[in-house]
Amino acid sequence: SSTSSPIMEFPYVSPPHRDLMVDLLSTVETRLDSQLLPSTLPPDVQSFQNQSGTAHGSFHIRSGHDSSPIDFILGSWLHCELPTGGALNITSLSSYLNSSTDAPNFLIELIQSSSTSLILILDLPPRKDLALHPDYLRTFYEDTKLDAPRQTLEIIPEVKPYFSSSLYIRSVVSPTAITVRIEGDAGDSGRLEEIIKQHLDPIAKQVLGIWLDQCASGKREVGESERAGLENRDKLIKSKTIEIDLGSNFPRLFGREIADRVLGTIQEIFSK
Amino acid sequence: SSTSSPIMEFPYVSPPHRDLMVDLLSTVETRLDSQLLPSTLPPDVQSFQNQSGTAHGSFHIRSGHDSSPIDFILGSWLHCELPTGGALNITSLSSYLNSSTDAPNFLIELIQSSSTSLILILDLPPRKDLALHPDYLRTFYEDTKLDAPRQTLEIIPEVKPYFSSSLYIRSVVSPTAITVRIEGDAGDSGRLEEIIKQHLDPIAKQVLGIWLDQCASGKREVGESERAGLENRDKLIKSKTIEIDLGSNFPRLFGREIADRVLGTIQEIFSK
Repeated sequence: SSTSSPIMEFPYVSPPHRDLMVDLLSTVETRLDSQLLPSTLPPDVQSFQNQSGTAHGSFHIRSGHDSSPIDFILGSWLHCELPTGGALNITSLSSYLNSSTDAPNFLIELIQSSSTSLILILDLPPRKDLALHPDYLRTFYEDTKLDAPRQTLEIIPEVKPYFSSSLYIRSVVSPTAITVRIEGDAGDSGRLEEIIKQHLDPIAKQVLGIWLDQCASGKREVGESERAGLENRDKLIKSKTIEIDLGSNFPRLFGREIADRVLGTIQEIFSK
Repeated sequence: SSTSSPIMEFPYVSPPHRDLMVDLLSTVETRLDSQLLPSTLPPDVQSFQNQSGTAHGSFHIRSGHDSSPIDFILGSWLHCELPTGGALNITSLSSYLNSSTDAPNFLIELIQSSSTSLILILDLPPRKDLALHPDYLRTFYEDTKLDAPRQTLEIIPEVKPYFSSSLYIRSVVSPTAITVRIEGDAGDSGRLEEIIKQHLDPIAKQVLGIWLDQCASGKREVGESERAGLENRDKLIKSKTIEIDLGSNFPRLFGREIADRVLGTIQEIFSK
């Protein structure tokens, strides 16, 4: 498990932000424990920093057993001092299923670029074209009432819609995706911490609970003929997502050598 | 053409709203004129009202020639007095392409439930699974800078995000779709009319222009093997969209007999 690994530190972020990430990751590892292999990531991918010490990061990946519907789970945190004096902190947890099931994946990402501003992406990204599969939409998004947490969050005055600059990223999320920017008053970081604790924390746990109960259980049957299409789509999305999320920023933040090492390791796991 | 047909009246709505709809429909019919067959809709589908005269509507449909990439264009307006004293007015224009091309369709819908509140849906709905077709996304949404009009509108203080209650409807729009609610101050219908004239009007014309130039021209080649998949997806979306948009409301507003006649005629054209 990850209890003694650098991932669980989630340093640099506020206590409620850290508590949330630790709880989510612990929950996933506890619930899926018997299905997950030990981490095989090299220590210098589990924790790394740039030469000047202004950028620091950690990845944690555990693949699923062959007999499990889990492809792998991935946790990460990244910290980068900004030239403006502040810092950028990104923490994420994602869980990918393999082609023995077509159920949605899980994704949460918190991007904090100041003590009063936070972007939250929380979703069960679909693994099929929803326009072509209304039954799938009903099973995983309507019957699970997955739009309710989004609606709960939407009415908080500090919560604004967030649009990724990447149209591709916008294309791979579900219609119940929570993609919001939370803007506290300048100088009042307490309010943002309060929103994380009182609102984001229970909502993120609720969505993860839906994923664990309805998706990770692998009850879906996928025919042999469907598997190839599913694998093809999964692979493309993973490779495009890395390219967009990390491909351009990572070398800039950590330097070429670290970027090559870390991204190389992750890409290898993603393309399996 | 539609110049003398009931569709062009767009009664009950404000002058800038009517001007916008008339301009859009005239532009489409002028640009595509040589490709469109005359309307064959029966007069009682071109214009209809309920027995008590509280609900009134009009449809206008023209199919494309066999050699054209246009499947059909559809304009409509609906007016219903509300028990609360106000009225609901819906106007729409959509253009569907056939399977000789996979280019996006065009859709605009304005839903006005009071003199100070308006919902706008404006999009080029994609005809492929965008997560699986990043090249398609680039061609029709990135290279055309289709997100710019959405961003322009977003910064107007009266413009709020709108989420359809139907997750299916949310699933069929593009990542650049404009789905907003415009809320003017109560009692000040002038501001809403000003926003329609100054902002919605040019933006809607810009998006229609992109569709006419980049999509309706039919420059894409679709292989024989791809056509069946495209037709299948198109048909499903059209049938689900009618069911969600009109299926439950129409009988309630117009009574069973008119609903059966009007929806029956439209479903027949949609399922061809």
